[in-house]
Amino acid sequence: MDALGYYNGTWGPLDKMTVPMNDRGCYFGDGVYDAAICYKKTIYLLDNHVQRFFNSAGLLEITLDFTREELKSILGDLVAKVDPEEVLVYWQATRGTGRRNHAFPGGRSNLWVMIKAASVADLRKKVKLITREDTRFLHCNIKTLNLIPNVVAAQRALEAGAHETVFHRGNIVTECAHSNVHIIKDGKFITHPADKYILPGIARSRLVQVCGKLGVPVEEREFTVDELFNAGEVLISSTSTFGLGVDCIDGKPVGGKAPELLKKIQDQLMRDFSEATGYPGA
Amino acid sequence: MDALGYYNGTWGPLDKMTVPMNDRGCYFGDGVYDAAICYKKTIYLLDNHVQRFFNSAGLLEITLDFTREELKSILGDLVAKVDPEEVLVYWQATRGTGRRNHAFPGGRSNLWVMIKAASVADLRKKVKLITREDTRFLHCNIKTLNLIPNVVAAQRALEAGAHETVFHRGNIVTECAHSNVHIIKDGKFITHPADKYILPGIARSRLVQVCGKLGVPVEEREFTVDELFNAGEVLISSTSTFGLGVDCIDGKPVGGKAPELLKKIQDQLMRDFSEATGYPGA
Repeated sequence: MDALGYYNGTWGPLDKMTVPMNDRGCYFGDGVYDAAICYKKTIYLLDNHVQRFFNSAGLLEITLDFTREELKSILGDLVAKVDPEEVLVYWQATRGTGRRNHAFPGGRSNLWVMIKAASVADLRKKVKLITREDTRFLHCNIKTLNLIPNVVAAQRALEAGAHETVFHRGNIVTECAHSNVHIIKDGKFITHPADKYILPGIARSRLVQVCGKLGVPVEEREFTVDELFNAGEVLISSTSTFGLGVDCIDGKPVGGKAPELLKKIQDQLMRDFSEATGYPGA
Repeated sequence: MDALGYYNGTWGPLDKMTVPMNDRGCYFGDGVYDAAICYKKTIYLLDNHVQRFFNSAGLLEITLDFTREELKSILGDLVAKVDPEEVLVYWQATRGTGRRNHAFPGGRSNLWVMIKAASVADLRKKVKLITREDTRFLHCNIKTLNLIPNVVAAQRALEAGAHETVFHRGNIVTECAHSNVHIIKDGKFITHPADKYILPGIARSRLVQVCGKLGVPVEEREFTVDELFNAGEVLISSTSTFGLGVDCIDGKPVGGKAPELLKKIQDQLMRDFSEATGYPGA
């Protein structure tokens, strides 16, 4: 199968799958999700993604009627059914099914899974960004289905020929539409603290760990738009991009001043991925 | 039929209807909606709701492939199929169907309709509210499907035995989880300006119009939590509550100091509704 969809125990080709109109995901976006990259049936960092998913559900008081191990087992079974070697395994839980009414409905939540082909980014390439004021809600630490501002920001990037949009609240950089963003400055790796303004990215945590392993000092602190534009290097990270260098923001050249350190970090990220999954070429 | 669901031309009993898993409403909440109250097949203020719906879609660049008149015709046809005399007619448009990818997919949007029994509030009764910091995004003027903070706030109200939750940003009152909120102070009707912090309620506009008709001065300005607690009267308004008096917020008695003016406004609201729809008892 090319791409697979799953809903509460039923599965089939993704593009043919249907769900109840009364699922609260459909009219309130009332749910949480997570997603992991998978190479040859090994779902990378699955424990971390499952842990974050349960954490997101807990923060929104969405009761999951399965354990972490049961979820991992379901995902593993589903991954075995799809053909592509590299896939993104996406899953979400919505707060049950019922006629539209704001208050919680009680009863079981719904588990959705979508698996489709995806590629890990080529870290030898650099990408362009644009900037945009961050007008999102103050729950960006929760991986929810309320993603309209992210969708619009991603569209603006596409239209500008850029890979991503960096959000900033006033002068403080937060994150991108579907990535975290970090800078290297004076040999240090600087990333926004994991608070309500950003998603606690698993790729972000890996970057912090890799910097630790390599002896690169890490500062988890707010940084400004000015620091972003004048950084030694700018990186974005997500489940499929790991740690991708940036060479241009809003049409202005950025980074490129610490290429060896950037490459050292990227090489370690790819080595870790290869060791875990057998991915070639690292 | 007790309750009806409609999706892109297909309709049936609401609780049996399904939609594609790949609809962008399902995983991004990427859509807009509106809803109107309907008595004996007359959808009240339909033109206003359809106008706001098209406006919401325009603000999110969701292209609707039907005209206002075509939408009104579809809704009228569907309302004719349901049995209850009083129903809520809810409709939404989502930004198309496709495998999950943030940027806009192109192609047609999807039209969903849900019709179910609902009642206009009895305005002789008063309701209780609780307060909560407003942590929502800065696009509250658009009636979107990104409603998690509203859902959680409504649940908190239910748990507190209250009807609604009033949001405030710091000391400024904005609106409720699914209503606007207003005060009467020194004989004046005071309501938050229609900016990015609140939905431009159609019931809110009606209140402003009714005040105009009755010679009640209207101030569209920000008001504080302190003004809310010390108001002559507090009212909330929505499609089905019109202008409902509040007697308690966070367990403290409020309002009740301008009962004649409140009743005058409420009587006019109900008269207008009765004249338009034939609703009895006004």
